[in-house]
Amino acid sequence: MTQRPYNFSAGPAVMPVEVLQQAAAEMLDWQGSGMGVMEMSHRGKAFMSICEAAESDLRELLAVPTHFRILFMQGGGLAENAIVPLNLARGGTVDFVVTGSWSQKSAKEARKYAAATVIASNESDGHTSLPDPATWKLSRDAQYVHICSNETIHGVEFHELPDLQALGSNAPLVIDFSSHVASRPVDWSRVGLAFGGAQKNLGPAGLTLVVVREDLLGRALSICPSAFDYKTVADNGSMYNTPPTYGIYMAGLTFQWLKRQKEGAFTGIAAMEERNIAKAALLYNFIDGSQFYVNKVARDCRSRMNVPFFLRDESRNDAFLASAQEHGLLQLKGHKSVGGMRASLYNAMPLEGVQALVNHMRTFEQTQA
Amino acid sequence: MTQRPYNFSAGPAVMPVEVLQQAAAEMLDWQGSGMGVMEMSHRGKAFMSICEAAESDLRELLAVPTHFRILFMQGGGLAENAIVPLNLARGGTVDFVVTGSWSQKSAKEARKYAAATVIASNESDGHTSLPDPATWKLSRDAQYVHICSNETIHGVEFHELPDLQALGSNAPLVIDFSSHVASRPVDWSRVGLAFGGAQKNLGPAGLTLVVVREDLLGRALSICPSAFDYKTVADNGSMYNTPPTYGIYMAGLTFQWLKRQKEGAFTGIAAMEERNIAKAALLYNFIDGSQFYVNKVARDCRSRMNVPFFLRDESRNDAFLASAQEHGLLQLKGHKSVGGMRASLYNAMPLEGVQALVNHMRTFEQTQA
Repeated sequence: MTQRPYNFSAGPAVMPVEVLQQAAAEMLDWQGSGMGVMEMSHRGKAFMSICEAAESDLRELLAVPTHFRILFMQGGGLAENAIVPLNLARGGTVDFVVTGSWSQKSAKEARKYAAATVIASNESDGHTSLPDPATWKLSRDAQYVHICSNETIHGVEFHELPDLQALGSNAPLVIDFSSHVASRPVDWSRVGLAFGGAQKNLGPAGLTLVVVREDLLGRALSICPSAFDYKTVADNGSMYNTPPTYGIYMAGLTFQWLKRQKEGAFTGIAAMEERNIAKAALLYNFIDGSQFYVNKVARDCRSRMNVPFFLRDESRNDAFLASAQEHGLLQLKGHKSVGGMRASLYNAMPLEGVQALVNHMRTFEQTQA
Repeated sequence: MTQRPYNFSAGPAVMPVEVLQQAAAEMLDWQGSGMGVMEMSHRGKAFMSICEAAESDLRELLAVPTHFRILFMQGGGLAENAIVPLNLARGGTVDFVVTGSWSQKSAKEARKYAAATVIASNESDGHTSLPDPATWKLSRDAQYVHICSNETIHGVEFHELPDLQALGSNAPLVIDFSSHVASRPVDWSRVGLAFGGAQKNLGPAGLTLVVVREDLLGRALSICPSAFDYKTVADNGSMYNTPPTYGIYMAGLTFQWLKRQKEGAFTGIAAMEERNIAKAALLYNFIDGSQFYVNKVARDCRSRMNVPFFLRDESRNDAFLASAQEHGLLQLKGHKSVGGMRASLYNAMPLEGVQALVNHMRTFEQTQA
């Protein structure tokens, strides 16, 4: 195969070549079973073994403690914006920290089910900073505190999760980690529930990951659909309804790929983090050293995964995108709500892809002089 | 490739070999785009073209009238059991006809959101018949009437949809057609909404199809999650949240396969119906002529898709299943709530597969004499 283009899509996003190759090879016959994975009953031995391996590999990779349950669900982050308050809000107060489009959407949807309070926001600076946790106006009676730990659209990332207990709150922290899950370790001691769509770092769209502390199960409102009641899903090993079996299989192959990764002395997620730090530094350093491109996010909270950037002369945007596409650099157009460009540097994007992007950005600038 | 085993799973279920082969071939590069379908932004031109083709092919195949909207959703039939009343019940009365496990589950879940009334039931005969629509006790003020048009577990199928208007009701008919969608034409003049998981006749698990009459949009309760509000989904072309992109692609390949099918003078769904009639007749006729096997469903409502059958001597069940497996006849075990065996004869099961099953059943009977 010739060199694949580098695909910077924010999601659904690039997947590891080895994972796609294995999936293609097994499409008609999984390990001599005479069936493709899509064709297997979810209650049969073959698929059960695939699902159990996926869950235990993920638990190992993310070091998920035993008092957390791993749930494979459907509906993505937008559905979770309703499902989380249906399960955890108990009709009470919920605190939201707004740091970009995703946390804003979460707060809006939660108002259907709870008194959702915005306790901190970076709206005044165009979602380019992180409000210091010391300034958050935590509600005394909050059922939980919601943050989006990486804002895919605005490119703002929590590099350290807030320690709510140290801030005087016993509310569980809920994190939407869709767009940086598996890119770095998670400090589970600070988390009550984490959710994310798979389509950035884990696998195909249509699979949703929920990791939830056991003591938070069983709190759902009676109006919560059974298929989205975390306790029902947990009690049935993610098989209350037919799960997205192929998505779980692809995520499982991705987890195996992650376990094989090494970077110096590091393996698995730690190896990915090393690479992700290097990839992000390469791109941000180039942008910061340029008079032609700019990134507007405060340095202490720039996302390693999603790098929105702008040409100072925006009349050149179309030419930039066309020329990038010609050079095998795909899906770089920024989200319509922000404009400009966005390069997503998920786990499956190699350092070589970021190097190719930087080289192209430099060349493009020179040709525009 | 050697002969594939015949896979009789009730779902997720066998898929057409040509569809799997094309998916495998395109896994790393869809039509020269440099991306696999899983890696494409759902808002990019490439995936949009895949999704639009899938929708228009399905509309053509099922002859869906223009005043119905086709929605690609997530959560499967069990999630729809909540989503339908959240969208259509308006907190009022809903009528259910119980003909097996699936309609029973639907009625139970609907009670969270509406006054769900069972207006007819075949429970007294173990879900082996269809209550005559003339006997249904339709509520005057029902927001809709729900049936499961094919009961996957009990093998009971409506061979004609009830004509509610002729019965004096203006309520829309809701059909759960998960397990026989695309196996036969649909009389849309009698339907308000049809829903189904894809994992039987359409594609992989994780994709849910909803076909809804336009005038039924915009009735959702305020507690309906936005991602499951039919109007929101319709207004956004099934892209309010990231759809299960790969599932839509696989369903689209299946729709193209369906369009290519011919049987005598028939094409598409009409061709499939001819084949499905022949397949079902072959198996039921053999069972009815046997003293060794039995099917308990009334002849006028036997499912063409799901054939539950029993060995009269149930002590031979394990031997039957083991011997079937040895002969490349897979996933024949009946649902735990019914027991015995179940052969699912979806579109992708060729007549040769049913012939092989019948041959094996005959041989097994002889060896047990």
